[in-house]
Amino acid sequence: MSNYTKILLEEHEMPTRWYNIAPDLPEPPPPPLHPGTMKPATGDDFAALFPKALIEQEMSQARYIDIPEAILDVYRLWRPSPLFRARRLEKLLDTPAKIFYKYEGVSPAGSHKPNTAVPQVYYNAQEGIRKLTTETGAGQWGSSLAFACAQFGLECEIWQVAASYRAKPYRRTMMEIWGGKVYPSPSDRTEFGRALLAENPDHPGSLGIAISEAVSEAVTDSSVRYALGSVLNHVLLHQTIIGEEALLQLAKVGETPDVLVGCTGGGSNFGGLAFPFLREKLAGKMNPVIRCVEPAACPTLTRGQYRYDFGDTAGLTPLMKMHTLGHDFIPEPIHAGGLRYHGMAPLVSHVYELGLVEAISIPQTECFAGALQFARSEGIVPAPEPTHAIAAAIREALACKASGEEKVILTALCGHGHLDLAAYDKYLSGEMVDLDLSDADLAEALKSVPVIA
Amino acid sequence: MSNYTKILLEEHEMPTRWYNIAPDLPEPPPPPLHPGTMKPATGDDFAALFPKALIEQEMSQARYIDIPEAILDVYRLWRPSPLFRARRLEKLLDTPAKIFYKYEGVSPAGSHKPNTAVPQVYYNAQEGIRKLTTETGAGQWGSSLAFACAQFGLECEIWQVAASYRAKPYRRTMMEIWGGKVYPSPSDRTEFGRALLAENPDHPGSLGIAISEAVSEAVTDSSVRYALGSVLNHVLLHQTIIGEEALLQLAKVGETPDVLVGCTGGGSNFGGLAFPFLREKLAGKMNPVIRCVEPAACPTLTRGQYRYDFGDTAGLTPLMKMHTLGHDFIPEPIHAGGLRYHGMAPLVSHVYELGLVEAISIPQTECFAGALQFARSEGIVPAPEPTHAIAAAIREALACKASGEEKVILTALCGHGHLDLAAYDKYLSGEMVDLDLSDADLAEALKSVPVIA
Repeated sequence: MSNYTKILLEEHEMPTRWYNIAPDLPEPPPPPLHPGTMKPATGDDFAALFPKALIEQEMSQARYIDIPEAILDVYRLWRPSPLFRARRLEKLLDTPAKIFYKYEGVSPAGSHKPNTAVPQVYYNAQEGIRKLTTETGAGQWGSSLAFACAQFGLECEIWQVAASYRAKPYRRTMMEIWGGKVYPSPSDRTEFGRALLAENPDHPGSLGIAISEAVSEAVTDSSVRYALGSVLNHVLLHQTIIGEEALLQLAKVGETPDVLVGCTGGGSNFGGLAFPFLREKLAGKMNPVIRCVEPAACPTLTRGQYRYDFGDTAGLTPLMKMHTLGHDFIPEPIHAGGLRYHGMAPLVSHVYELGLVEAISIPQTECFAGALQFARSEGIVPAPEPTHAIAAAIREALACKASGEEKVILTALCGHGHLDLAAYDKYLSGEMVDLDLSDADLAEALKSVPVIA
Repeated sequence: MSNYTKILLEEHEMPTRWYNIAPDLPEPPPPPLHPGTMKPATGDDFAALFPKALIEQEMSQARYIDIPEAILDVYRLWRPSPLFRARRLEKLLDTPAKIFYKYEGVSPAGSHKPNTAVPQVYYNAQEGIRKLTTETGAGQWGSSLAFACAQFGLECEIWQVAASYRAKPYRRTMMEIWGGKVYPSPSDRTEFGRALLAENPDHPGSLGIAISEAVSEAVTDSSVRYALGSVLNHVLLHQTIIGEEALLQLAKVGETPDVLVGCTGGGSNFGGLAFPFLREKLAGKMNPVIRCVEPAACPTLTRGQYRYDFGDTAGLTPLMKMHTLGHDFIPEPIHAGGLRYHGMAPLVSHVYELGLVEAISIPQTECFAGALQFARSEGIVPAPEPTHAIAAAIREALACKASGEEKVILTALCGHGHLDLAAYDKYLSGEMVDLDLSDADLAEALKSVPVIA
């Protein structure tokens, strides 16, 4: 193994259980609240949106949940995913550090999103659901859900933020290749959409509006449910297969991480990689520094407030205790569309509050500078979101160069950038600027957070 | 292994030799001719274009050529590539056939082209060459060469057909991410280009013109060489790693192919997959039907003539004995840009003439219909070129359904379609039409083939 580049697992070595961190935490995370009663939300509060099995997972206290064979069978199309040793990047940086990255761009949709799209569709199919609705911004989540629906024969309807629908026609094509129906949001298919279009026929839309349309379509028909691509506990649960595989792969080469960095938008990529390692850390088996990396334009953990807030802009969801910039906050149009979320997964916020993980933010030009170094050495062109993780890994590797420390750095490259090349064009042409959040905009945005007595 | 989807090789199982089919053929292929003397071309005739090591490989009679460690080291970024059993496609087609596909879309550039770009750059670097020039149409080859140049620190200049340069900006961005310089062709950087632009400032360009510009830039500077992405013997040689890996992978599951199908443009993907299997067939170890699949719009093997012709439109290259539609032939703008070549690799033409392989042509709408079935079942969105191989595999699998035969079908998925989604959009919107070559156009095109006494 002296000269390995990839560390692979055989299919029979693929983990067959997801890991639920909730029961292992020193104290339980605060529950979601029903916005009407302000009491902890119950399973019934979610019943119109999600199938029973997913609601059970959302609230489960079981440490492990078996992955059904039908899901493993779809996972095998791309899983186990490779763990790479970034030898060429190490050489370029002239660092004594060892950099490992888990690569999720090998999935059909090119990101980690199918890890949860597949089980979400499976459990809906098991309960006889005919159609799923969802929202999408840049399109990574929408295409993942469309792919998963094609695997189990469900219909898939996706409300895509109108500005993205117009600017990124190829993402729409991906969704349609897998049989998805895509509507620009606001659309004329829902009452809410029609009202907005009456005001402004060229409305650019927002993720919040798209969620409202997808939800309203789901709740009116008992054969239809809604699917969410991040934030919720069951989504992070499904993504833990990333970290479980990485643990097995590092063990194959006898390494344990000293530093783990992952990019955080809604938190599912980060939680998926980090939680199995956090379990090991809590058990005293290893002691990595675990660090969230967020965009300086949307610094939820590093500059937001830890309060109950709505998950969507329109205020339709239960209240969740999380780090938030305010549910009215519209982040600047940085290229990492998947990190432009005002809130954070409650589980990630909770472990951050407990001091179990750290957080930093990085401006986007530093991220793309790192991505170019990465692409020219390692070959893979990263999606804009994981450029944040790469930039953080490079910071750490350069610190090792200065200190002489031979740290083991682990990160996740959660997707490839083939459908985001316009962002690289902007960087290469010198037109990309940092769009860091100003104090004034932050103060204004926080005003939308509900004040709870 | 009863439920496997992917058949993987460990890095240490990766073949360390390329296979040269020339010495194993029942008779040697006709040599290239110098167009001035009409005598067999010598190494000197290629010396201004290629480094010595590649010219030696071009003319080698050695059955195997060791792959230098520095090349294996770059190959490890994505190789060994996976072999998939297309269980979900088999189920969709309800066929008793077993369908296997070797997937080359895992390379950094997303196609099989880096298999030869990396050694070509390596040997140039070994001989002290500073810069490589090449042409590219849609951009797959140009981006592969730019990636390979980044690995060995060479400069890379690419003349991209102007129409593609304007229509496909993202491919240009890929090349620039890896440090390549891209010029639309015709360009103002060469005398030939300037002359064409003087006639028509909006000249759309052609592959032939782009070759002329890249070649003319290379021959005037002894520190610069030119690189070609298909057709030549050494290119097919490098691609045999595809077939060598596939042989090992099929052996792991105890299968031998009854039918092997591969798409053919210049012939390097087909030769790379098929030649190691043809070696086994010639040795009596297996007996697969081996079949080239070409587009009905550019049916080189099935409707062209086997004669000496130029490799490029401008008539600058040695004359090669191959199936040709005439070097003046401009194929209709089908979406499989990589298959729009008037000629064929002389080695592929030769084995076709010897009756060792078969050939068929397929219209593009059948190809995209098959690609949608493939994407919805197997998950991967194929590039337009391998949709031809998929359509042929589906034809064979449906024949097995009718006959009840449990044939083992092997094909190569030589690239993903993430940068070709406009083609899918055209198909999905019902706007794609077949552009099969007419008899009149064929007769006209063949007039450009030189008449050799």
